[in-house]
Amino acid sequence: MQGQSQQQAYDRGITIFSPDGRLYQVEYAREAVKRGTASVGVRAEDGVVLAADKRARSPLMEPASIEKLHKADDHVGVASAGHVADARQLIDFARRQAQVNQLRYGEPVGIETLTKNITDHIQQYTQVGGARPFGVALIVGGIEDGEPRLFETDPSGTPYEWQALSIGSDRSDLRDYLEEEYEAGLSTDEAVGLALDTLAQSNDGELAPDGVGVATITVDDDDGYTERSNDEIESILDERDLLATDEDAPAENGDADDATDADEE
Amino acid sequence: MQGQSQQQAYDRGITIFSPDGRLYQVEYAREAVKRGTASVGVRAEDGVVLAADKRARSPLMEPASIEKLHKADDHVGVASAGHVADARQLIDFARRQAQVNQLRYGEPVGIETLTKNITDHIQQYTQVGGARPFGVALIVGGIEDGEPRLFETDPSGTPYEWQALSIGSDRSDLRDYLEEEYEAGLSTDEAVGLALDTLAQSNDGELAPDGVGVATITVDDDDGYTERSNDEIESILDERDLLATDEDAPAENGDADDATDADEE
Amino acid sequence: MQGQSQQQAYDRGITIFSPDGRLYQVEYAREAVKRGTASVGVRAEDGVVLAADKRARSPLMEPASIEKLHKADDHVGVASAGHVADARQLIDFARRQAQVNQLRYGEPVGIETLTKNITDHIQQYTQVGGARPFGVALIVGGIEDGEPRLFETDPSGTPYEWQALSIGSDRSDLRDYLEEEYEAGLSTDEAVGLALDTLAQSNDGELAPDGVGVATITVDDDDGYTERSNDEIESILDERDLLATDEDAPAENGDADDATDADEE
Amino acid sequence: MQGQSQQQAYDRGITIFSPDGRLYQVEYAREAVKRGTASVGVRAEDGVVLAADKRARSPLMEPASIEKLHKADDHVGVASAGHVADARQLIDFARRQAQVNQLRYGEPVGIETLTKNITDHIQQYTQVGGARPFGVALIVGGIEDGEPRLFETDPSGTPYEWQALSIGSDRSDLRDYLEEEYEAGLSTDEAVGLALDTLAQSNDGELAPDGVGVATITVDDDDGYTERSNDEIESILDERDLLATDEDAPAENGDADDATDADEE
Amino acid sequence: MQGQSQQQAYDRGITIFSPDGRLYQVEYAREAVKRGTASVGVRAEDGVVLAADKRARSPLMEPASIEKLHKADDHVGVASAGHVADARQLIDFARRQAQVNQLRYGEPVGIETLTKNITDHIQQYTQVGGARPFGVALIVGGIEDGEPRLFETDPSGTPYEWQALSIGSDRSDLRDYLEEEYEAGLSTDEAVGLALDTLAQSNDGELAPDGVGVATITVDDDDGYTERSNDEIESILDERDLLATDEDAPAENGDADDATDADEE
Amino acid sequence: MQGQSQQQAYDRGITIFSPDGRLYQVEYAREAVKRGTASVGVRAEDGVVLAADKRARSPLMEPASIEKLHKADDHVGVASAGHVADARQLIDFARRQAQVNQLRYGEPVGIETLTKNITDHIQQYTQVGGARPFGVALIVGGIEDGEPRLFETDPSGTPYEWQALSIGSDRSDLRDYLEEEYEAGLSTDEAVGLALDTLAQSNDGELAPDGVGVATITVDDDDGYTERSNDEIESILDERDLLATDEDAPAENGDADDATDADEE
Amino acid sequence: MQGQSQQQAYDRGITIFSPDGRLYQVEYAREAVKRGTASVGVRAEDGVVLAADKRARSPLMEPASIEKLHKADDHVGVASAGHVADARQLIDFARRQAQVNQLRYGEPVGIETLTKNITDHIQQYTQVGGARPFGVALIVGGIEDGEPRLFETDPSGTPYEWQALSIGSDRSDLRDYLEEEYEAGLSTDEAVGLALDTLAQSNDGELAPDGVGVATITVDDDDGYTERSNDEIESILDERDLLATDEDAPAENGDADDATDADEE
Repeated sequence: MQGQSQQQAYDRGITIFSPDGRLYQVEYAREAVKRGTASVGVRAEDGVVLAADKRARSPLMEPASIEKLHKADDHVGVASAGHVADARQLIDFARRQAQVNQLRYGEPVGIETLTKNITDHIQQYTQVGGARPFGVALIVGGIEDGEPRLFETDPSGTPYEWQALSIGSDRSDLRDYLEEEYEAGLSTDEAVGLALDTLAQSNDGELAPDGVGVATITVDDDDGYTERSNDEIESILDERDLLATDEDAPAENGDADDATDADEE
Repeated sequence: MQGQSQQQAYDRGITIFSPDGRLYQVEYAREAVKRGTASVGVRAEDGVVLAADKRARSPLMEPASIEKLHKADDHVGVASAGHVADARQLIDFARRQAQVNQLRYGEPVGIETLTKNITDHIQQYTQVGGARPFGVALIVGGIEDGEPRLFETDPSGTPYEWQALSIGSDRSDLRDYLEEEYEAGLSTDEAVGLALDTLAQSNDGELAPDGVGVATITVDDDDGYTERSNDEIESILDERDLLATDEDAPAENGDADDATDADEE
Repeated sequence: MQGQSQQQAYDRGITIFSPDGRLYQVEYAREAVKRGTASVGVRAEDGVVLAADKRARSPLMEPASIEKLHKADDHVGVASAGHVADARQLIDFARRQAQVNQLRYGEPVGIETLTKNITDHIQQYTQVGGARPFGVALIVGGIEDGEPRLFETDPSGTPYEWQALSIGSDRSDLRDYLEEEYEAGLSTDEAVGLALDTLAQSNDGELAPDGVGVATITVDDDDGYTERSNDEIESILDERDLLATDEDAPAENGDADDATDADEE
Repeated sequence: MQGQSQQQAYDRGITIFSPDGRLYQVEYAREAVKRGTASVGVRAEDGVVLAADKRARSPLMEPASIEKLHKADDHVGVASAGHVADARQLIDFARRQAQVNQLRYGEPVGIETLTKNITDHIQQYTQVGGARPFGVALIVGGIEDGEPRLFETDPSGTPYEWQALSIGSDRSDLRDYLEEEYEAGLSTDEAVGLALDTLAQSNDGELAPDGVGVATITVDDDDGYTERSNDEIESILDERDLLATDEDAPAENGDADDATDADEE
Repeated sequence: MQGQSQQQAYDRGITIFSPDGRLYQVEYAREAVKRGTASVGVRAEDGVVLAADKRARSPLMEPASIEKLHKADDHVGVASAGHVADARQLIDFARRQAQVNQLRYGEPVGIETLTKNITDHIQQYTQVGGARPFGVALIVGGIEDGEPRLFETDPSGTPYEWQALSIGSDRSDLRDYLEEEYEAGLSTDEAVGLALDTLAQSNDGELAPDGVGVATITVDDDDGYTERSNDEIESILDERDLLATDEDAPAENGDADDATDADEE
Repeated sequence: MQGQSQQQAYDRGITIFSPDGRLYQVEYAREAVKRGTASVGVRAEDGVVLAADKRARSPLMEPASIEKLHKADDHVGVASAGHVADARQLIDFARRQAQVNQLRYGEPVGIETLTKNITDHIQQYTQVGGARPFGVALIVGGIEDGEPRLFETDPSGTPYEWQALSIGSDRSDLRDYLEEEYEAGLSTDEAVGLALDTLAQSNDGELAPDGVGVATITVDDDDGYTERSNDEIESILDERDLLATDEDAPAENGDADDATDADEE
Repeated sequence: MQGQSQQQAYDRGITIFSPDGRLYQVEYAREAVKRGTASVGVRAEDGVVLAADKRARSPLMEPASIEKLHKADDHVGVASAGHVADARQLIDFARRQAQVNQLRYGEPVGIETLTKNITDHIQQYTQVGGARPFGVALIVGGIEDGEPRLFETDPSGTPYEWQALSIGSDRSDLRDYLEEEYEAGLSTDEAVGLALDTLAQSNDGELAPDGVGVATITVDDDDGYTERSNDEIESILDERDLLATDEDAPAENGDADDATDADEE
């Protein structure tokens, strides 16, 4: 780790290596991801679970408009953390890729293929000048050839496959929790529980039904990507003793008008 | 929050992340929004209300020429705060999108769809070089499938849906007021009252009919987007005891010839 | 208002926001407008009056070649203040827009429409890189559907409608004078008098017929845009006791060879 | 007038306003004009006179190759001051415009029209990035509809019409001289005399026939643009007692090998 | 080696030489390669071996998703070290080149030809502006005309052919080890052993089957590029006494959440 | 003349004026010309002479490969001083222009026309961004309509016509010598002698036949551009007592391996 | 020669002159050439000899893959020094030029023509922005019309013809040696000996057969460009008492892992 003055010299240009071989703009984009609220993905035996912290800054804001969970295709869901507007660009890109694949090959796009399409797109923004990197990480989950798959994309454009992962704020703590609690062979319902348990770690152990989103894609379900209703989420939270006592309480940093993460959930 | 010298290093380029993952140019564009006079949106049971502070800098200026309320389509209105000229660009973009949607699908564009068209457009100006972000926020309100909808766009390109919101100067105070006073199930007329009450908060509790604009789009009204006449506004203000005693008084900062917000209402 | 060193950081790039949300280049372009000699517009009951201070730097310069008043279309006139060469670009743009409108719709372009065409064009130069903003303000006046209309464009690209206004040097004083003296319902001839009275405010109360230009567009007159002859102006000035005693006296700052406003009238 | 450090901040970029609304690059281009030797234009009753100081740096240089007087069209001449190579670009532009006008409308281009074509071209180089302004001023003179016309273009792209003017070095003194000596109704021959008298002001009252050029365009002469021969010039100089005693003396600053104005006449 | 301040002057621009003739950006890209985990290539008598350290940062990450070994064509494999996303771009480029060659000439691309296609592509990113160099090195191995060939590409775009080599972290130590242990005439199986011995040098002499990848392309095998299964690797490691005692132990630097090499294996 | 710190501010950008109206990049390009060895041109009664100092840095270098004299067309020769590679670009440009002229008008290009084609091309590199000026001066000599003509092009793009001139190192001294010695009415052979006398001024009065080149174009000679053989040059040098005693002696600064003018003759 | 701080001001931009007329980037590219190992060219009576130091950094590297000698056409060879990847670009360019010439004119390209094609290409990278100069020098040798020709290209784009020359490290010493030892009229075999003697000067008088390459093109040989085998080289080295005692010893600076000239031979 070098001193302050050296660092200043290398982090202003977006496509330049530092003397120790780092790309600061990409690392700062990772900081933008950490400023976003957490999302969690868990791969179950028979499906994939995506869950996201989507607390609103104000009780007047519609929770449904906080975009953390996205349907990319019938069988593919995406959870994001970081800059919402950047995430939307990548989701749009993913949807077009899924459609093109369907048209060209007559079959649904593979989860790994789709993820790598996205990461190759992200990489371009880290090498070619004239634009900044994307300030967002994605969890891409879905069913491919009857198998649940769960991937991560980060601002450098690297794809990783996971059994379970979290992105966004408190990433380190939530990963520790997942590494401890995750077991292979979970059912999708158990995975939903684990995902909510994990999200609750960064919320004093409590979640409001409005402030959380859950989506599942299962092997057997013809419906593909499905988001759980508030009522379903409330009953699960209640069951697991995670239900927040005051549903209307805004996000902790939601009442500061000049919050700098106003564009992150 | 970091020191002065660090900040200077990251806020000069428009498409560069700071070490803590922030995009300063986007945050400064939010400051440009705060320099504009306030606009308010309220979603009622049967319609949507847009209201705007449009005080003139001089009694010789035509109040009608201060563009804060815009008709984007028959069933969609937009209120803006910040740079007027930037707002005009986004309104033009929105109108073209609405027309394209009508031509392509034979039906009016959805409020959510239109909002996201706008925010995706805004996002491009925060990622790709060669231009600054838009220095304006919009409230997009309208009727979609018989339901009133109310959205916000900010300079980062993030869309939010609200029950009631304000943008522009004194945002924090006006939001507090709305959070306290807003109740679900308001009629459109009650919502007009609430919107004017809210605007009056940043004007010593008084408004001049000339210095305020009100537009409504209701579920039942075939006329779609409708702006209230000065007389209607005057009688409402009178009724709610908000009527300014001296109609001709210019805006507080309107008599300074070198006012820097000359291009903001 | 911030200190010197901060300011320097933000005013070099043309399309960058300052931390308090200002676009310095646009504000400096406003200073360029103030360096130009004054122009005045007055809306009368039955017409519109444009008047401009067009004193020459030297008695050898042809007063007629000092371009402050421009005919944009038969029924539209424009007065400018600031960079003459920039003004010419915008006038050319306005003339093409007026012609296109006539060709496309078979009718004269509306004054408001034309003004907004111009301001949208100006805005592009404040957002997209590679060019500086226009250093000029315009008064656009004309007859639309039998009604006199009077608009202003400023370097930010914001359109305003006025009953009477001035642009260029001494703007603040001339506006105060207009606010005091203007009355609704003036005849065009009375408006010419008011316009000249106003211009005289920044010339020690005197004007030379050669050093001032007056144009009118009236509702009833089929001739459309008409510039008054020197003789007409002289007799009006004489009548109002504004006539300068020595017609040949150059502009006050006209005899300094290194004058920096050599390109402004 | 501001201090040194401020100035440095604004004069490096070519298309940027200073805080007081000035375009330094344009002002510096005016300095480049002043570094060139003088040219003079005088409008007579029946024609236009262009005269230029074209002293050579060395007796071995061909005086005829020093380009200060240019024929732009049969009825239009141009005198320049400043960067010779820049002047050539503008003259080429003017010639093409004159030809295009002839082809398109079947008649000679107007002097005012041609001048404004040139100044509009110059203005582009002061607003759009990627090039510096033109470092040259022009006197455009000719006959239009039987009337002599005389115009100036400066580096800002502003057109002015004059009865008589000078550009280049000692502009201020020569203008004073012209203002004193010029009278309306001069014959072309008298105007030639005045032009040479004026040029001699910045040469200790003496001129060498080789070191000066004179061109005239007269109303009655079918030959259009005509340059006077050395003999004709010599006899006029002799007659007016302006003839230099030693014809071969080089220009004052012509014997310094490292002269920075080697590219200016 | 020069002082600090000089260095800062030359390493900011990507396409600029330093006074001593170095391209710092290329050298820093080499540092990015060293930040990646090691890959090893060994040329045997009858085939080529590629091996790579692919330890995961977390036991929840799928080892198979860590991309260090790539099939470029049936008879060509590539091992990478450095930025994963950059490597993917080059592998994609290599695959397209291989396909184009097959289509154009009806035969498999030569290993040397393919390598030089890649290095020429890399060189462009070190000379032409607008992009940074690739932060990745590749080992390209395969069979050409019945002969095993083994090449390296580095960030400068230089191709080298090797008998055995390593790229990535601890390059210097692993090369020393290879220089000592490599003998001409190794069988492919012996070469697999040597490759794993070498990789173990930078892992305390131990490797987990999950944390290492091995691919071979042999002269006689019709299958071409083949990756060894975890079981095969485990039995070889066991045989050579390299088997890590605790398979689940994460990579040494894998548990630091803010690890800067998150995008390198 | 201004101080050091001011100068630094204006000489970095290639297309920017300094406050006193100078283009430093053009002036520095003139310095590059002075770093080249001298070339001389002399116009005779019946022809044009070009001569150049072309001493080699090493006796192993072929003198003929040192490009100082170029045939641009049958009747046009060019001598250069400064950057050889830049000179080659301009010569190529000149040759193409000569061919185009021949094809288009069926006659040889005029010397003045060709020179101005070249200077207009050079000017573009001093006004439009994205390239540096040409670091070379040319002497363009030839026969036009039976008359010998001799022109100079400099890095600003200004054309001059001369009776006799020198470019490159020691320009000032050589010009003084020429001004003293040149007489109108010289024969071509006498002009060759004067040219060699002049070149010898900057070589201690001695020249080696190998180290000098001479070309002539005469009015009567059908061969057009002709370079003199070494033997011819030797006998002339001998005759004028200019012959160097040791032909193999390298150029004075030719034995320094790190000579910075390695790319200039 | 100027001080340090001045120098810093001019060597950052690639296409800018320094106040004394130098192009620092071109001079630094020459330093890159000096960092490469030496190449030597000798013109014999009946052929041309190219020889190059190609010691490997490691005994595991294939000497044949170190590209210092290149066949550009049947009758043209090229030896390089400096950046290998840059050399490859120029060789590719030369090969295409040779093919185009063959196709267009039905005959082999001339050595001088080909060299100048290359240098004109190189010059572009020193004048037009957006790319750095080529960091490589070439020796271009071949037979043209039955005559051996030997040329050099340097980073400025200047072509030189030589009887014998060296490029790369120790250039100055090797040139001194060549100037002393070279005699006109050498046979090709004698020239091979001289070339190896010269290369040995910078290797303690010893060369390993693996560490050196030799190519010849002779007038009488139909085979054109021919590289000597290791055995042939060994016997010549042995004969001249230049044979290194330990063939496997790596290059002196080859064992440093962080060697900065890793991309130069």
